[in-house]
Order: sequence, then structure tokens, then C-alpha cells
Amino acid sequence: MAKKIAVLPGDGIGPEIVDEGVKVLRAVAESFGYRFAFRFGMVGGGAIDRVGTPLPQETLDLCRDSDAVLLGAVGGPRWDDNPPELRPEKALLSLRKELGLFANLRPAMLFEGMEQSSTLRPEVLKGVDLIVVRELTGGIYFGEKSRERLEEGERATDTLVYHEWEIERIVRRAFDIARGRRKRVTSVDKANVLESSRLWRSVVNRVAEDYPDVELEHMLVDNCAMQVVRKPSHFDVIVTENMFGDILSDETAILTGSIGMLPSASLGDGSFGLYEPVHGSAPDIAGQGVANPVATILSVAMMLRHSFGYEEAARAVEQAVRSVLAAGYRTADLAPSGDLAIGTEEFGDRVAEAVRRHV
Amino acid sequence: MAKKIAVLPGDGIGPEIVDEGVKVLRAVAESFGYRFAFRFGMVGGGAIDRVGTPLPQETLDLCRDSDAVLLGAVGGPRWDDNPPELRPEKALLSLRKELGLFANLRPAMLFEGMEQSSTLRPEVLKGVDLIVVRELTGGIYFGEKSRERLEEGERATDTLVYHEWEIERIVRRAFDIARGRRKRVTSVDKANVLESSRLWRSVVNRVAEDYPDVELEHMLVDNCAMQVVRKPSHFDVIVTENMFGDILSDETAILTGSIGMLPSASLGDGSFGLYEPVHGSAPDIAGQGVANPVATILSVAMMLRHSFGYEEAARAVEQAVRSVLAAGYRTADLAPSGDLAIGTEEFGDRVAEAVRRHV
Ligand SMILES: [Mg+2]
Ligand SMILES: [Mg+2]
Repeated sequence: MAKKIAVLPGDGIGPEIVDEGVKVLRAVAESFGYRFAFRFGMVGGGAIDRVGTPLPQETLDLCRDSDAVLLGAVGGPRWDDNPPELRPEKALLSLRKELGLFANLRPAMLFEGMEQSSTLRPEVLKGVDLIVVRELTGGIYFGEKSRERLEEGERATDTLVYHEWEIERIVRRAFDIARGRRKRVTSVDKANVLESSRLWRSVVNRVAEDYPDVELEHMLVDNCAMQVVRKPSHFDVIVTENMFGDILSDETAILTGSIGMLPSASLGDGSFGLYEPVHGSAPDIAGQGVANPVATILSVAMMLRHSFGYEEAARAVEQAVRSVLAAGYRTADLAPSGDLAIGTEEFGDRVAEAVRRHV
Repeated sequence: MAKKIAVLPGDGIGPEIVDEGVKVLRAVAESFGYRFAFRFGMVGGGAIDRVGTPLPQETLDLCRDSDAVLLGAVGGPRWDDNPPELRPEKALLSLRKELGLFANLRPAMLFEGMEQSSTLRPEVLKGVDLIVVRELTGGIYFGEKSRERLEEGERATDTLVYHEWEIERIVRRAFDIARGRRKRVTSVDKANVLESSRLWRSVVNRVAEDYPDVELEHMLVDNCAMQVVRKPSHFDVIVTENMFGDILSDETAILTGSIGMLPSASLGDGSFGLYEPVHGSAPDIAGQGVANPVATILSVAMMLRHSFGYEEAARAVEQAVRSVLAAGYRTADLAPSGDLAIGTEEFGDRVAEAVRRHV
């Protein structure tokens, strides 16, 4: 049975980088004997222009009928003044909600030869290979909000709510992921102050009993914000609630260098997932063939691992990226002197070629 | 009129490091012709042992009758199993509350010659000199909390509340502080998601009108967690709410190296303030004369600046610390090969001497 992949290129550099992701998937299919069926859909600003909504029903139906989604990027100055409901970014929120994607995965790893693009010392970066598993649909971003006018001025309120089941499903996901890695989970909370964190910690401790082979530690969020800069190689899987995960995944993103390198996955129940680069649609360089496709290609590796269970193929793609970078090839964003840079397509060709050679 | 300073040495290395702080204040008094009246009080574990409470009423009265408080550190394994009300750390919370200290100041600056103790590259550290101004008495740490048992399991709730006046007083404080520095304020919030952050941002914009000489920027907290690692020299004054400040002040703490170097101030209305090192009581090395007094001495510099308005004296103390470090003197925690280390007292002597020479 072919794996059905919904491909949503989106705006800006989206189409260019997604092309390279699909190219690499075709190389995987060829080399490993897998079958993928690609079906394309509209999303973001382009969809607004053509059909008046950032997430058309047919795109949503296409995703629902697929095993995984590969998304490029959405947005651009052209739609910046639109009302909230007609903003390209609204499509991402709607997709997460409609598809029940509650786990956001953001890996940060060091690629050899890329040390110079980080602000951390090379010896601190050595061995950095972590993943932040962030709860995506609960917590204070989605709690009740209010604003009141009192005699002494205004008062604003936000509410942070977590249910046991919401915590349990993301924590189990994190432990499962740790089993495929170095078997170490760091659960981040603020249990010395927050009630929701105390519930979080008790659920983590209970779930951990089902994973005696995985090492668990608890860390307070302020200490964690310090430790990821002090000793990032300490971490394997970091699991945390929505807002802490938002902060920590952006902090860890910067550890290993360019944001052009960072993939992400958003998972729900089962094996379905949406995969997209962390970076945006970069409208300023769109259509020039100079965009960095690494984040998209690494997102494809995550798809192979987390949605299809093709671990060997996932590693082959990661290894292919590693080898192309190690050979000195860079897109313009990473080439300090622009003249050594290669284009988006050539970079994708070289990775696809390395995937084929690998087998 | 002599400035009345309440001195609370506390537990562990507290008494040793506070001695050096007082020593430096005496050198300042001598050199600049100021008068300080030191009065000592019990706090923390020692107070529990002697009078059965971590913050005796007479200590609180002493603080209230003073112009500033110099605190060492509290806590130790001896009291770790005490109930919450009889924990040494309870004294800190009570002091903040009773004294109305709503602004926590945590500077992070680079001392020449200390670059090797940071995990960031030396060129990234160049020019780092920032201060985090954190709201200390409001927000989610102090909001209503609850836990309910529903049919599908437990649910936990925390509440984040801010009043306009709470925001205004901390923001004004931050702008005032910026005027004595590089005149740049970064206000950190999550205004794209949180209602309390939208109120925060509107108050900041209103207050900023009274400070046309100070440059203001708004930054989202997740981006800020990234930017302080990417380009820490960008920042001058960071002002933010309680929890964001907790996370960011710990993250910035690690930028410039040892936590043994970091001072702090907690301010209320007017010029009263409490000054203490960020580090703890380090019971493992207490009484050995090897503790690093730099954080306490720099806290004394903050006292001179923020409570007494003795800016020149404050700079003289900071310059003295700088010159002693530049001459190669280190306490054991900072001397990679222990044999070059000097003791707590000798370090304090050298700083006091440098203060005297400065004038
Ligand atoms: Mg973010
Ligand atoms: Mg903290």
C-alpha cells in the first residue's frame, strides 16, 4: 500500500523547498522500495487569493484522507493587513485543531561543519542532539481570557488549565520517542509554584512506571532555560506544556545555528502527522532558487520516522544531509562568502543522490 | 545623616560573604565621605534554630527602620525536611511581601578575563551589559489555583492576573533605570496570545510617552529567549512580568559565566531595597574561607546606586571588582587550577583596597 502524502507548498519559498522534500521522498521510495502517493493542496495566502480562505475544505479533506502532510510555509506582506480570519497563518492553527495535532516535535542537533554558525562554543555543542516535545493544544494559550475595568484601572486575566488526559497523551508520546533515541526524558514544569505543574509532574511519574527502561528527570523551567545553554548535550527528550515548550523550543533552536536547518512535526493520536520547516515563507527570496531546503528535507525524515515507522530511511535522509554539508555544500544563507553557495535544486539533488548511494 | 543598613548574614557562606560586602561599604564610606550605620539581624535557618521562625519580628522591624537591606543567603540540608512555614527560604518570600518589594533587578555583564567561564563565544559576549527587571509580586505565581476531580480525571488550574497599576509601577522603574544606562528598554510579553500581555503592552506604550529619550522595543518571550543567546549585547534593560522574568533572568545569568558573580536587588516604592547575591548558601563550603564574595560585593554596588543614589561610588566598586579580576585574582570556584586561588577575605581586601585607590 502506498503511503498517502498531502503536499501543501503554500507561499513564498514554500513551493521551492517542498519540491526538494518530494524529490528526496522519491529517492527514498526508489532506494528502499517504498511507495508514496503525492497529492497537492492549496493553503495560506495563495488559497486566500484563489478561493477566499486560507484553509479550503478540500485541502482539509485531502489531509484527513492522507497518512501524513508535508507543508512548506505560509504568509507574506501581501496578506499582512488582512483581518485575523483571512491571515495565511490562520491555516496552521486551523489545521492543528481540525486534525487533532497535540504534540509538537522540535529537534535540535548539530551538523558537523556547522559549528561556526552557532553562538555557543564548539566544545559545548559537541554531541548536541535533543528534541523538544511540546503540548500544543492546551494550557494558557487556550484558556479563558478576560479584561475588566475596575475603579483603579484595568485588570487582565488568563487561565492555565490542564486535564490529566491531555498531559498523559503527550507524556506517553515523549516516552515512546525516547525509546527510539537515548532513552532519557527531561520533564519540565514549575511544580514549586503552579498547580497545573504539580498535576503534570504526578502524571509524568505515573506514566514513567510503564517505561522502566527510560531514565526520567524533572527540571524547573527557569533552571532548564539555563541548562540548555550551559550544557545542551545533557538533554535527549524534553517534554513540557504549551507555553514552556514555546519558549524552550525557540531557545534550543538557536543553539545549533541557522533556523533554516530546523524541521518540526505535529502529531496527533496514531501515526498521522504534519511536517513542516520551523522557518517562515521568506517572501524576500522567493522564486530565486536560493532558499535552504534542509529544514524541509529533515522534516521529511521526521515523517518517515514518526508517521511511517521507516527508521532506516529516516536515518538515511539525515545522513545524506550530513554528508552533503560535510562535503562543504551550502545554500546562500549558510555560505559566509556567497560565491561558494549552491542553489535550492542542486542542494536537493545532492541529498537525493546521497540517499541513493547510501543503500 | 548616616544611611541605615540592615545586615542579615543568614546561613552557610552567608556570614563570610556579607563580611566582605560590609568591608567594601566601609571602604566606600572612607573614600567618599559617606556614613553607613550597620545593624545586624537574624534570618533563615539560624533564626529557626534560635527563635523558632525564619523571619523574626525584630528582624522585620529592623529592615523597616533601615534604608536598605544586605542579605547573605539562607538554607541548608539541616532544615530541608522542615514544613513549608519553617523553611529558611520562607524568610525571603515573607521579606518581599512585608517590605512591598515588587521589582527584582538581575544584571548580567561580562567581566574582562572571565570570557572562558561562559559557554558562549567570546565575540558574542563582547559588550554584554544587560539588566532584567522582573515584576515580583503579581502574575501566575500568585493567582488563584485549584484542582478538581472530574469523571475523566483530574483538572488543574492556575490564574494569571495583572492590574494596570502593578504593570505601571514596574515599567516606570525600568524606564528610570534605563535613563541611568544606555537608554534602551525591551519589554517582553506574549501579546499575540495572552490578554494580560496585551494589557502589559498597552501600559508600556503609555508610560513610554513620558520617556521620549528612552528607546522602546517590544519582544515576544519565545523570541527573546532566542535573542538573548543569539545576540545578548543587543539588550540594555529587559522589563517583563513575573514568570517570564523568572525564566529570562536565569537564562541570562548563565551568559556571562559563573553564578557566583551575580548580584540582585529587590525594590519597592521609593528608594528602599533589599540586596543579595543570586547564588545560595553553599553549605558544602561554608566556614572554609573559600566562598566567592563577588556577587555580594556587586549587590553592594547596586545598593549604592539604587537605594542611595551614590552612582560614582557604585561605579567605583564595580571598577574595583573589575580590576581585581583583571589582575588575575580568583576565588577557588573560578580558578581552573586551584593553586592560584585566593580566599574570600583576601578577595574582599583587594576590592576594598582598589576602591580606596580609585578615589
Ligand atoms: Mg515560538
Ligand atoms: Mg528562577
